[in-house]
Amino acid sequence: MTTSAQTAAESAKLASHSLASAAPETLNQALLAIAAAIEGDSARILEANQADVAGALKLASQGELSQATVDRLRLSPAKLKEMAASVRAIAALPGVIGKILDQVELDTGLELEKISCPLGVLAVIFEARPDAVTQISALAIKSGNAAILKPGKEVERTAQVLVEVIRATLHSQNLPEDAIQLVLGRESAAELLKLSSLIDLVIPRGSKALVEYVQSATRIPVLGHAEGICHIYVDESVDRALALDVIEDAKTDYPAACNSVETVLVHRGIASEFLPLLSARMKKAGVRLLGGDETQAILAGETIGPVADWSTEYGDRILAIRVVGDIDEAIAHIHRYGSSHTESILTTSEQNAEKFLREVDAAGVFHNASTRFADGFRYGFGAEVGISTSKLHARGPVGLDGLTTYKYLLRGRGQVVRDYHGAGAKPFLHRSKSASTAKSN
Amino acid sequence: MTTSAQTAAESAKLASHSLASAAPETLNQALLAIAAAIEGDSARILEANQADVAGALKLASQGELSQATVDRLRLSPAKLKEMAASVRAIAALPGVIGKILDQVELDTGLELEKISCPLGVLAVIFEARPDAVTQISALAIKSGNAAILKPGKEVERTAQVLVEVIRATLHSQNLPEDAIQLVLGRESAAELLKLSSLIDLVIPRGSKALVEYVQSATRIPVLGHAEGICHIYVDESVDRALALDVIEDAKTDYPAACNSVETVLVHRGIASEFLPLLSARMKKAGVRLLGGDETQAILAGETIGPVADWSTEYGDRILAIRVVGDIDEAIAHIHRYGSSHTESILTTSEQNAEKFLREVDAAGVFHNASTRFADGFRYGFGAEVGISTSKLHARGPVGLDGLTTYKYLLRGRGQVVRDYHGAGAKPFLHRSKSASTAKSN
Repeated sequence: MTTSAQTAAESAKLASHSLASAAPETLNQALLAIAAAIEGDSARILEANQADVAGALKLASQGELSQATVDRLRLSPAKLKEMAASVRAIAALPGVIGKILDQVELDTGLELEKISCPLGVLAVIFEARPDAVTQISALAIKSGNAAILKPGKEVERTAQVLVEVIRATLHSQNLPEDAIQLVLGRESAAELLKLSSLIDLVIPRGSKALVEYVQSATRIPVLGHAEGICHIYVDESVDRALALDVIEDAKTDYPAACNSVETVLVHRGIASEFLPLLSARMKKAGVRLLGGDETQAILAGETIGPVADWSTEYGDRILAIRVVGDIDEAIAHIHRYGSSHTESILTTSEQNAEKFLREVDAAGVFHNASTRFADGFRYGFGAEVGISTSKLHARGPVGLDGLTTYKYLLRGRGQVVRDYHGAGAKPFLHRSKSASTAKSN
Repeated sequence: MTTSAQTAAESAKLASHSLASAAPETLNQALLAIAAAIEGDSARILEANQADVAGALKLASQGELSQATVDRLRLSPAKLKEMAASVRAIAALPGVIGKILDQVELDTGLELEKISCPLGVLAVIFEARPDAVTQISALAIKSGNAAILKPGKEVERTAQVLVEVIRATLHSQNLPEDAIQLVLGRESAAELLKLSSLIDLVIPRGSKALVEYVQSATRIPVLGHAEGICHIYVDESVDRALALDVIEDAKTDYPAACNSVETVLVHRGIASEFLPLLSARMKKAGVRLLGGDETQAILAGETIGPVADWSTEYGDRILAIRVVGDIDEAIAHIHRYGSSHTESILTTSEQNAEKFLREVDAAGVFHNASTRFADGFRYGFGAEVGISTSKLHARGPVGLDGLTTYKYLLRGRGQVVRDYHGAGAKPFLHRSKSASTAKSN
């Protein structure tokens, strides 16, 4: 079943064409069958997983793998039930394919329609997470896309059995089993990233190092972000209790997450009052502070380390603090050192809030809310395909429709362009019809 | 005024931030002022253009430039009036910035808004067209983007004066003049294409060779297409007169255009009847036919050349013909040899038409209409920024909104994520509000 990247991509491309024209109900039915098959084949899946766990434990005992990774890749009957449930949840989501995005009557009997359609072939490169196999396959099938999966080597056996189960189910549902492909090994990943004529989107799922490697190694569009350097700006007029709560949440709810805050910018007018409060609160929460000269001077009695680089993603219980003169200096700092992920202003001034929301160039710009809200599930997308700090195609948390593109359909009666230009040219009507209607689910 | 690409891009980036937060009315007013300035400064512009024309004529006399290029770069008072009129037309278009694309109430007092905003900095590399300077600058300003222009060397003097006029007008309107930058020379183009952290989108405007060079030389997203290999499939049930009219229009209306047809696929069931009709019509229109074995056999009395490569864009009065067994074979041919630009089926069968529209993967899929309709103005976009055969971001003819991205604004009252997960988690509301409302013009 494992093949070369080239062969896998060619088969996936062919399969993607028939998948793209399958009815949404057919795809949803296939997802329900896959969920059932995951539960039905649980013995076989767990057996393969035990082999992966045994290998991982050996590596862990040699100090080559963390215990957290071993825990993450270990499946159980309960975890398989969760996997199946998440596939069923994806089947239950509203459809994203065949939506009429726009309709314009160019002339009588010449109707233009813009409809959503699948991208084609996705390549997904991930690490030691068996649930990525089922989740990504389900997102791809739901959106009519073929997918090529390249798992981390620690979960190869589990991934292999899961892909077998998915492919057999697709086949039994009269869908092309080649729509889901597995490739193994580092060389395959490198080969995949070169196939820009066959693969439409690459999704790296894993560490910052993985994302950076993928971004640097391919010309195929990448859905992902290497860095999340998020800021909170504490304005001069601010509810201090609110500010302390939001900063604590943004820093400590999940410090390793990309939407955690790394740097707090504090208006000079309240710095000498606010910084001691912030310092006390952070100490209680086990957060270590770093600061510029002015911060160190204000918190002179405490040991505040210096900031080596304002563009650092700590991913840990570490928070950098800088005193700024005003909102403009805060915005300039954010544009200079930020990663355009998520930025928040805490203020009681509506005027400053709206200025910040308007002027800051980032995927998410918040007022009086924790940066941690930047998330597909919290935004209500039902599923999160990834988070993008790119500005093209998809930006911010990306839901299922990040896996779609569109095409223009034109239905005529033999019209020719010649009649619409030059002397005696017919005029176009360009009459817009209702847009954004979901055609199917 | 000309600077290094790096300096130009850094200045453009800074200027883009203030341009992005300018009110749409301010930008429209600046466009009207630019139109007036083009007319007011016509003597100076024409003088610079005469120098360019003199240089071009010298090259033409040495056979190094075509007469068509000389004609294209020559300005006149009438052409300057057209330039100014097209800038005014762009000012009159509906706005694309600050549109509310989606609104969701995540919870009481926690409102998510998705709004359109400028991409940031565009780099536009074009050839010997002075009108590109004003048109692209106007499109950029209208959409709140900064732009770096790299003109062909034959129009450098004209471009320099036009950019001076535009920058001076921006300055007089209290907008950042650095929003429009000019760089000159091949090395600058190569340098620009490396500045992926400063430039958000590259738009090549010119020959296929230029587009291919840009696509191969940069990691910045490129809006453009190198090839238009468009097909028309003539189905078994077809109105023959309609088919001949549409094919003639698609081939001869403007053979060098990317949306002209290159290959006609004819159903075997009507080939022996239809091909002689098509051959006669094409002969009358001065179109030379190429064909596969079966076509050559059917048109045995005529001199039909062989097809060397089905992926050729002739861009001329040359048409390749292939006989296919059925619609599936036609679709397979299109997917194998096409460039996903525009494909058309001519048929009286609604069922086959809908199958073709559904299954063919291309930016435009047409039924009973000429491929030449694939065009931003004909689609009703008001302005065409380019045509894209990429699937991400923008596909097909691209209007002004191809120069925009979006950001998520979240307005809260101090909410923290901690309250929405774990034991006793508050549920999200995710109540969708009215979408697609234009906030401003």
